[in-house]
Amino acid sequence: MTTVVTPRGTTAAAWHSGGWHALPAPDLSALLAAGGPWEPGEPLPDATPTLPLPRPGKVICCGLNYGDHIAEMGRTAPTHPTLFAKFADTLLADGADLRLPAGHDADWEAELAVVVGHELRHADEATARTAIAGYTVANDVSVRDWQNRTPQWFQGKAWDATTPFGPVVVTTDEIDPEAGVEVICRVNGNERQRGNTRTLVFSPAALLAYVSTFTVLRPGDVVLTGTPGGVGMGMTPPQYLADGDVVETHIPGIGTLTNTVRLI
Amino acid sequence: MTTVVTPRGTTAAAWHSGGWHALPAPDLSALLAAGGPWEPGEPLPDATPTLPLPRPGKVICCGLNYGDHIAEMGRTAPTHPTLFAKFADTLLADGADLRLPAGHDADWEAELAVVVGHELRHADEATARTAIAGYTVANDVSVRDWQNRTPQWFQGKAWDATTPFGPVVVTTDEIDPEAGVEVICRVNGNERQRGNTRTLVFSPAALLAYVSTFTVLRPGDVVLTGTPGGVGMGMTPPQYLADGDVVETHIPGIGTLTNTVRLI
Repeated sequence: MTTVVTPRGTTAAAWHSGGWHALPAPDLSALLAAGGPWEPGEPLPDATPTLPLPRPGKVICCGLNYGDHIAEMGRTAPTHPTLFAKFADTLLADGADLRLPAGHDADWEAELAVVVGHELRHADEATARTAIAGYTVANDVSVRDWQNRTPQWFQGKAWDATTPFGPVVVTTDEIDPEAGVEVICRVNGNERQRGNTRTLVFSPAALLAYVSTFTVLRPGDVVLTGTPGGVGMGMTPPQYLADGDVVETHIPGIGTLTNTVRLI
Repeated sequence: MTTVVTPRGTTAAAWHSGGWHALPAPDLSALLAAGGPWEPGEPLPDATPTLPLPRPGKVICCGLNYGDHIAEMGRTAPTHPTLFAKFADTLLADGADLRLPAGHDADWEAELAVVVGHELRHADEATARTAIAGYTVANDVSVRDWQNRTPQWFQGKAWDATTPFGPVVVTTDEIDPEAGVEVICRVNGNERQRGNTRTLVFSPAALLAYVSTFTVLRPGDVVLTGTPGGVGMGMTPPQYLADGDVVETHIPGIGTLTNTVRLI
């Protein structure tokens, strides 16, 4: 399921029998907020997927959640999730140009993103697991020199329209991150990251439960689960995104985000 | 100006001739988004101020922005603003109970909050200054043990309904933080913090300009400017909020927030 653009505007849509079919809401955020219905309606032959969730109320990110990435960043295994927030303005649709500031150190971070389906507060892990609407792909592109200017990473993570996100949300019967799904990033066709979610320190359900201790999660909110090893900052020498680079963020069973870097 | 509750519901309102008068929007966020009009309408004899901005799209906070607080946290003067984000769910109205988790280290942080009046992106400081709609009072109450669990402060700063905010927004002709306004916190009548905004490392306009480098600020968005020295974590021994404590957050020329701690 996702949000699609058609000649008549945007609508929530479900993939069914080889094509997109309308769901009765202007976008997937609205349909999740309404709690459905999920039965596919009329076929949409001219539909193109766009940002699946145009304006999540909360996007909460976990850093340092894969052992190999923790090692490459020179840190030790955490006892609690390292969390930071980003606003919906950072999200970028599949296919859109990835506009980044010239003269700075922009880096890739492929991630599995969890989409919340039911309101959660003070939830245990089992309850949190039942509140997952589905999963999508994200790339928490980070402007490293800004991220490292101060003790807080936010300013390197919050550049508008720099987090590729989508292209679709798959439901929990389609993939199982606890059993393991691969999270892959390629730059100009060269594989830079390949991790597996079964090595996550904190699972999607564990993250949702932990976050729900201090804040409510609502349908359409998003939690990014962290990135595996292989970021540019961890390379010798460090390597960052250049104008014209093609970034592909791929999770088998969900799909691929393809975004071309434009330094501005 | 603020948002008030009346027997007929909530409305934006302006203080005029000794009383609240209606402004034509359901709340101050909506009126800022619409850009006015600002002429006071019918008097509202039964109005009570509530959260002035019920749901800011962005609340961005600056840490480490007063020299005395930087020293008490054992840090050196920053070259760039230390920024983190919080979501609107953290805001709490004047007079409401400040519900905090028992068995944790909750601390006070009185702050001047800046309310954005016009959209800003890639703004210089002079432009940012003209985009300030006004100022209000905030207390960035922080659960220190959660804040310090990981390298990122967010999880200690994002507990729902723990950031007293309001009670009114004063316009830029009423106070001048660059010339200096005092920022005061009292706990059970004992003064714990008294700083002056003229000692801010980064002024309100400087913060808005800096943030606008990476993300758009829209009418009704909020930037918290940091807290002066005197937090409980900096006391010897450290002192934290207890059940029944009355926290008063006061900025002369704006008003006072009074919230009673309830450990839950």
